[in-house]
Amino acid sequence: MSRTCLTIILAAGEGTRMRSSRSKVLHEVGHLPLVRHVARAALSAGAAQLAVVVGRDGKAVADAVREDAPNVQPFRQDERLGTGHAVLAARSAIMQGFDDIVVLFGDTPLLTEDTLMRARGELAGGAGVCVIGFRPADPTGYGRLIEEEGELVAIREHKDASELERAIGFCNAGIMAFAGWGALAMLDKIGNDNAKGEYYLTDLVAIARADGHRVTAIEAPVAETIGVNNRSELAEVESLWQDVARERAMIGGATLTDPKSVYFAYDTEIAEDVTIEPNVIFGPGVIIEANALIHGFSHIKGARIGAGASVGPFARLRPGANLGENSKVGNFCEVKQADIAAGAKVNHLSYIGDAKVGAAANIGAGTITCNYDGALKHLTEIGANAFIGSNSALVAPVRIGNGAYIGSGSVITEDVEDDALGLGRGRQVNKPELGKQIAERNAAAKAAKKGEN
Amino acid sequence: MSRTCLTIILAAGEGTRMRSSRSKVLHEVGHLPLVRHVARAALSAGAAQLAVVVGRDGKAVADAVREDAPNVQPFRQDERLGTGHAVLAARSAIMQGFDDIVVLFGDTPLLTEDTLMRARGELAGGAGVCVIGFRPADPTGYGRLIEEEGELVAIREHKDASELERAIGFCNAGIMAFAGWGALAMLDKIGNDNAKGEYYLTDLVAIARADGHRVTAIEAPVAETIGVNNRSELAEVESLWQDVARERAMIGGATLTDPKSVYFAYDTEIAEDVTIEPNVIFGPGVIIEANALIHGFSHIKGARIGAGASVGPFARLRPGANLGENSKVGNFCEVKQADIAAGAKVNHLSYIGDAKVGAAANIGAGTITCNYDGALKHLTEIGANAFIGSNSALVAPVRIGNGAYIGSGSVITEDVEDDALGLGRGRQVNKPELGKQIAERNAAAKAAKKGEN
Amino acid sequence: MSRTCLTIILAAGEGTRMRSSRSKVLHEVGHLPLVRHVARAALSAGAAQLAVVVGRDGKAVADAVREDAPNVQPFRQDERLGTGHAVLAARSAIMQGFDDIVVLFGDTPLLTEDTLMRARGELAGGAGVCVIGFRPADPTGYGRLIEEEGELVAIREHKDASELERAIGFCNAGIMAFAGWGALAMLDKIGNDNAKGEYYLTDLVAIARADGHRVTAIEAPVAETIGVNNRSELAEVESLWQDVARERAMIGGATLTDPKSVYFAYDTEIAEDVTIEPNVIFGPGVIIEANALIHGFSHIKGARIGAGASVGPFARLRPGANLGENSKVGNFCEVKQADIAAGAKVNHLSYIGDAKVGAAANIGAGTITCNYDGALKHLTEIGANAFIGSNSALVAPVRIGNGAYIGSGSVITEDVEDDALGLGRGRQVNKPELGKQIAERNAAAKAAKKGEN
Repeated sequence: MSRTCLTIILAAGEGTRMRSSRSKVLHEVGHLPLVRHVARAALSAGAAQLAVVVGRDGKAVADAVREDAPNVQPFRQDERLGTGHAVLAARSAIMQGFDDIVVLFGDTPLLTEDTLMRARGELAGGAGVCVIGFRPADPTGYGRLIEEEGELVAIREHKDASELERAIGFCNAGIMAFAGWGALAMLDKIGNDNAKGEYYLTDLVAIARADGHRVTAIEAPVAETIGVNNRSELAEVESLWQDVARERAMIGGATLTDPKSVYFAYDTEIAEDVTIEPNVIFGPGVIIEANALIHGFSHIKGARIGAGASVGPFARLRPGANLGENSKVGNFCEVKQADIAAGAKVNHLSYIGDAKVGAAANIGAGTITCNYDGALKHLTEIGANAFIGSNSALVAPVRIGNGAYIGSGSVITEDVEDDALGLGRGRQVNKPELGKQIAERNAAAKAAKKGEN
Repeated sequence: MSRTCLTIILAAGEGTRMRSSRSKVLHEVGHLPLVRHVARAALSAGAAQLAVVVGRDGKAVADAVREDAPNVQPFRQDERLGTGHAVLAARSAIMQGFDDIVVLFGDTPLLTEDTLMRARGELAGGAGVCVIGFRPADPTGYGRLIEEEGELVAIREHKDASELERAIGFCNAGIMAFAGWGALAMLDKIGNDNAKGEYYLTDLVAIARADGHRVTAIEAPVAETIGVNNRSELAEVESLWQDVARERAMIGGATLTDPKSVYFAYDTEIAEDVTIEPNVIFGPGVIIEANALIHGFSHIKGARIGAGASVGPFARLRPGANLGENSKVGNFCEVKQADIAAGAKVNHLSYIGDAKVGAAANIGAGTITCNYDGALKHLTEIGANAFIGSNSALVAPVRIGNGAYIGSGSVITEDVEDDALGLGRGRQVNKPELGKQIAERNAAAKAAKKGEN
Repeated sequence: MSRTCLTIILAAGEGTRMRSSRSKVLHEVGHLPLVRHVARAALSAGAAQLAVVVGRDGKAVADAVREDAPNVQPFRQDERLGTGHAVLAARSAIMQGFDDIVVLFGDTPLLTEDTLMRARGELAGGAGVCVIGFRPADPTGYGRLIEEEGELVAIREHKDASELERAIGFCNAGIMAFAGWGALAMLDKIGNDNAKGEYYLTDLVAIARADGHRVTAIEAPVAETIGVNNRSELAEVESLWQDVARERAMIGGATLTDPKSVYFAYDTEIAEDVTIEPNVIFGPGVIIEANALIHGFSHIKGARIGAGASVGPFARLRPGANLGENSKVGNFCEVKQADIAAGAKVNHLSYIGDAKVGAAANIGAGTITCNYDGALKHLTEIGANAFIGSNSALVAPVRIGNGAYIGSGSVITEDVEDDALGLGRGRQVNKPELGKQIAERNAAAKAAKKGEN
């Protein structure tokens, strides 16, 4: 579409029902702030310029949108005098001149590019204003969209509607697109002669029609128009968003044993023939290559999982975990900022942080890279084909050579050269009968203590 | 309400369909026995006295109710001759004289204070009997509540109902309130001249009307009237109960990414701006302060989580875990009977039991407090700002001083004074080429074994 | 039923919408390949002989069915010319002569023995063909089953149906039973004179009627007829299957706090009074005895859990885990190929693999059996009443005697006799003030590094 487009995102609401110290539109769905969902839909639908009208947390909100739209223009709305007033806070953006102006709410994150493109299509087809409507299960309380011969002739508030009009199921979602040229003049005509003394953007319908413009309405799926006002609605929107992500993953060739128990982030990438067991949580920045197997109870963020790799159950992959082909990270293992090369195994009860693990290395159960000295993080390097005996502590910075072998239970503080054996543990002594005596003494102490009480 | 009230809880049912060695009403919802849900609703609705009619497991059932109502009076019903007979088991309680008598079922845990108050309100308004009804999706099989001019004129069993009466959707939930004065005389009039030869409490409707009393019915939401007869129904009731708890938490200002995957106990306390990721299980006795973050896969019971603290993923907090402000308990960590002071970190693969961890202390990965000697538990004290190197074993009783530093992989059996370094580990030796030789020898053994097979 | 029965499973479909390198019918529900669900239903319904018509992955598919039906006959369908053509691929099986022939789809795993028995009952009652139908919520697109006086007179494709016929909700599920004697002659009459040039098994209805046979239809519950064509449908079928398994477990006397979060395998065995918290995943081969308690976040496969035993939370039981009566395996513990005898406890952060743990032994937190030397697995034996101090590494092959006591943090490489004390750890040294100096040095290094950046 060669028409230029400005999208104004209204994000100045107080959001008091969220009961939060954070702005409502910064609460997240799929690990992305609500307002960024809106911004990304707007950009996908061809917005050349974004404006965001902010109140509380204005800087944080603008910064969030800037992640997607570096040239976003923030505008401050200090008084809350209605949607018409909010749009005019972006007056200087409107004055830059755009073919299309789209007004969205920052708390309505499920609106799709497709719906926005259809609204803009109406403008391209000659409409002066296009209102986005929806059909709720129960329209009571919503403004009804009154259509005649393909035109939207009025938005009738529920309380003002006749019985016949109340039978209309098509309702105003509050979202609107209008032609940019001449828009300011029309917006300035919006008055506040109403019960609340507010300026309503919906008045644009009557104003545009009075000016001889054609006004139309298009229908969006109900889910797309859900706004978030409290945390229960936030959870509902999260659920709807996740369902879409899950369906996309499955149709794309991933097996999700129980899709409802897998939680994606907005940017999760999944190849074909990936299997995901129940109960897996993805944070942002995860890439899963083909044939990988994610067992249940895995918590994964900022990680790459190579082709054919196996993760979990009970694995935690933190940012910078980079798992090579056919590598394995097993139960009760945490991997952070570490390369696990092809075929390497970290199967049990290990912490691998700030490390490079060579190809086909075997990391025994209970191995810990001691990466932190209380102030700085240090690197552990483990060579290809190295064998780290169970319950070893590798005190970084340290390097275990290729093919080296570390005895179980060792504390390794110095480098171990290629093919060497590294040992660092006490020598075993057995003391006959002493085990029994200790047990008896402890039992006696327990009995004595009981006697005291 | 100044009227006195006796609530009789019928809890003598066999519950054979539970297929359990435990009494049905002791099975739990939200970690509280069914009968205690009922008792607490009764108390909230102003019951001055509770009576519980018990059969099997009578003592255990009475003990459970006693947790909430210390003065509960248990009555034994040895024969099972109907609800009328069961109520009369509490004859001596009724004889004490109360304005209102409410009869509840011990297996109907979702009934609310609000519904009970409305029933008692009917009595206060002059009704002799008030029956609690509900409107099931399919009324087939239920007794219909026949009303005329605001009065309940009859309860008609499904099999005896006319076609017109079967069209009535308002059904008898079996729960009833009646005026206490004169109640015994009426209860004694209930006969057993019916197919099963049982005494039905519902006969009170006809008896009261014959005596000239007004009888009314009020409607309870369907969910409140669900009784538990098998474990499938138990799960259904648990699910409904959890949904209420989840909604309350969200409206109160907690973010639940997926409410359906968070399980509360009856007494979980959650402050504002708490975030709970998917898959968190709360046992009884948990308090979560503001801005705390509970990551997914956490299992928490009897613990306090201080303001701004971070828990999980994969954390287990057991009774007595007391997390200070902004402290952290991370993945694969178990904390039991331990204070974790403000800003302290237990981030990875650690067991901290019977311990005091000082402010801003850092507990390295794989640290274990060896609190048990086979007979008694002992205390580990870790001072403020102490640094415990990874994979250390702290053998209690032991004290690590403020600012002390424990080398990784140490076994600490003696106290370490403030600011000291404590080390207890073997010295490392490297043996060139020996790693390779061991690997070759092991591989040869494997090949030989294969040859044998 | 004394009638002989051949069941032909059609499993040659490409399944391209699965987007998988594996044959569609090998994808699993309840840890059993789709085609094995079908085969097992067929065997339960009395099939003496199974034939499976395969395409891609033919050998793997036949091998899967062979697990249940050792004498299954595989037939290759190289060209895909319709269901009639597919059935005739099994011509030689049909020629062996059976009373009943049942044709099933390998991707329709929820069909029950009961439905198949009813279809075969129709044949026993004299019908020549019995078609299995269902009533979808929306019949659009499905072939309608046209019945007259108890007989199925035609299957009308949606596009060919009259308005009156389209009002029929009873549809063709594609599954069919027919009398075996004379079947070949009728199958050979199926032509391909249609738009796609394919041979449709449904033509058998008209052919049989033309030959004077009675044709009937029976209705199956909708869920039983769902075919799997993509991974979203696979998840839907998994969910339906799990719901049946969950309900069966609960009615059988197991408490499932949240049934939707418990995932069974096809062969999970659960006794009475077992409690399963939310979020438990069962792989194949699990037996749970009475009164066992499975805490949340447990992942269990190929394990026996003895009466009264307690598992989890956060436990991983792998194949060969054999938990005795009243034993405990607690958080962050992995047990593999190991006997845990009655009353023994493995409570925290341990890996017990290739081991025998004696009765009432206590395995301290962080204990690891070092079972793997890089090539072979070795056995660890721990005697009855032994006490293994926390954070110990037991280097197999090794034996800890009855009543022996291992000091915390030990590396045990040699056997410890009964009642002895085994110790293998460094001696502790404390260095006054050095902890502080290390912390200061590290902090200085950090500051210097920051300065560099």
